[in-house]
Amino acid sequence: MGNYKIIVQYDGTRYKGWQGQKSTPDTIQGKLETCLSRILEQDIEVNGSGRTDAGVHAIGQVANFHAELHGKTVEELLAEVNHYLPDDIAVVNMEEVDDRFHARFCAKDKTYRYRIHTSEISNVFERKYVYRYVDHPLDVEAMCHAAGHLIGEHDFKAFCGNSHIKKSTVRKIFNIRITESNDEVYIDYTGSGFLQNMVRILTGTLIEVGIGKRSPDSMHRLIHSKNREEAGFMAPPQGLCLMHVSYEEEQEEQEE
Amino acid sequence: MGNYKIIVQYDGTRYKGWQGQKSTPDTIQGKLETCLSRILEQDIEVNGSGRTDAGVHAIGQVANFHAELHGKTVEELLAEVNHYLPDDIAVVNMEEVDDRFHARFCAKDKTYRYRIHTSEISNVFERKYVYRYVDHPLDVEAMCHAAGHLIGEHDFKAFCGNSHIKKSTVRKIFNIRITESNDEVYIDYTGSGFLQNMVRILTGTLIEVGIGKRSPDSMHRLIHSKNREEAGFMAPPQGLCLMHVSYEEEQEEQEE
Repeated sequence: MGNYKIIVQYDGTRYKGWQGQKSTPDTIQGKLETCLSRILEQDIEVNGSGRTDAGVHAIGQVANFHAELHGKTVEELLAEVNHYLPDDIAVVNMEEVDDRFHARFCAKDKTYRYRIHTSEISNVFERKYVYRYVDHPLDVEAMCHAAGHLIGEHDFKAFCGNSHIKKSTVRKIFNIRITESNDEVYIDYTGSGFLQNMVRILTGTLIEVGIGKRSPDSMHRLIHSKNREEAGFMAPPQGLCLMHVSYEEEQEEQEE
Repeated sequence: MGNYKIIVQYDGTRYKGWQGQKSTPDTIQGKLETCLSRILEQDIEVNGSGRTDAGVHAIGQVANFHAELHGKTVEELLAEVNHYLPDDIAVVNMEEVDDRFHARFCAKDKTYRYRIHTSEISNVFERKYVYRYVDHPLDVEAMCHAAGHLIGEHDFKAFCGNSHIKKSTVRKIFNIRITESNDEVYIDYTGSGFLQNMVRILTGTLIEVGIGKRSPDSMHRLIHSKNREEAGFMAPPQGLCLMHVSYEEEQEEQEE
């Protein structure tokens, strides 16, 4: 039995997320498990670094699975998996790793990008990967100011989509970077982990700061309220993409 | 009555092309005409620089229409049109032009790009804009050699999808540039104009050169045959995109 780490890209448009409430074939994890199980003729369970919501995309989702390759090489398996996967899911890397590696438990930090398209004119080729927001112009400076207050270790209960959560809602955000280009404002969030819907609620809240509906300095009070109703709207899923997951053992290959 | 020139972008995936055989709402031209006619409350006829096939995309399609704006500014009309158009069609520029300007008759040259994705691994975010060809590796040098024989003024009847064509099938290709990147080979064609399906048949023929099914030097004989059956297969529409249309009067703003 080997342990295999994969990097997965997907266009989440037509899926119910990485993993559904129940086992369903309409999830990314479900597609991968079905595909690997058929090729390897054994029950394969795929562990993702975390769930992504229905409609959310990934460029660098990480997962692992234990399997007996029966003489197949990793390269052969990678080619077969991609041959059978639908063309909106791709395994872009596969490697054998230490038996103790677990994509979720070993994850050090994750980076998500939320893309806001701010032009009246549709970007026809990217339209499924952005949230088009043209009601009001965004004050990016105010958003950056507000984002500064969100960085650090906090109880993010106010930004959690699951009101019945029993486990700890404390997370650490290492960085929030907001970039403005021609027709787009995109927000990169790097943190130890994120609660359900958290990045989308953070984004909705930052947008409300950007249009002057709330002040940057109100973030402190909002965090301390621990009340979902005090936070902003939940930005829609299509603008969100899981960019990268880091692990302790790896050399940081990502640079600016 | 003013004459207005527009630059149009579209994801052609769900359309029956720029213009159908009959007037139909499932065409790009049909969508634009319906939208402009409703906003301006008059019958608007949109003239495209040329028809693109069903499933073909455009980044720089050019069209013109005559209309009475009744006090609306061009900027206002542009914003309204984009507001009502579906999000897979966008008018990215609109300007009033000389009354004699006609998008088709005044076009000097057109550039199309055909994108061939050559990796076993799907590009999940670009998959609808490329043709994935992984059966055999492509010998790009041989393709460049063959492309050299296609440049110039020739009777391209062998590359025309309409076997009943009565008009002249002589066209002039100014340039064919083939570029190889990591996972892609893309071919840029610039010419005075192209016959129905011509770019896709040229591409299919060049792919057949790339896999060694025909020799680069066979292009001469093929052109002279004037026989569609002698040419290669017709590459599928999704890899094709109309990039740019040039007009006499404009300063060439495009650089390498």
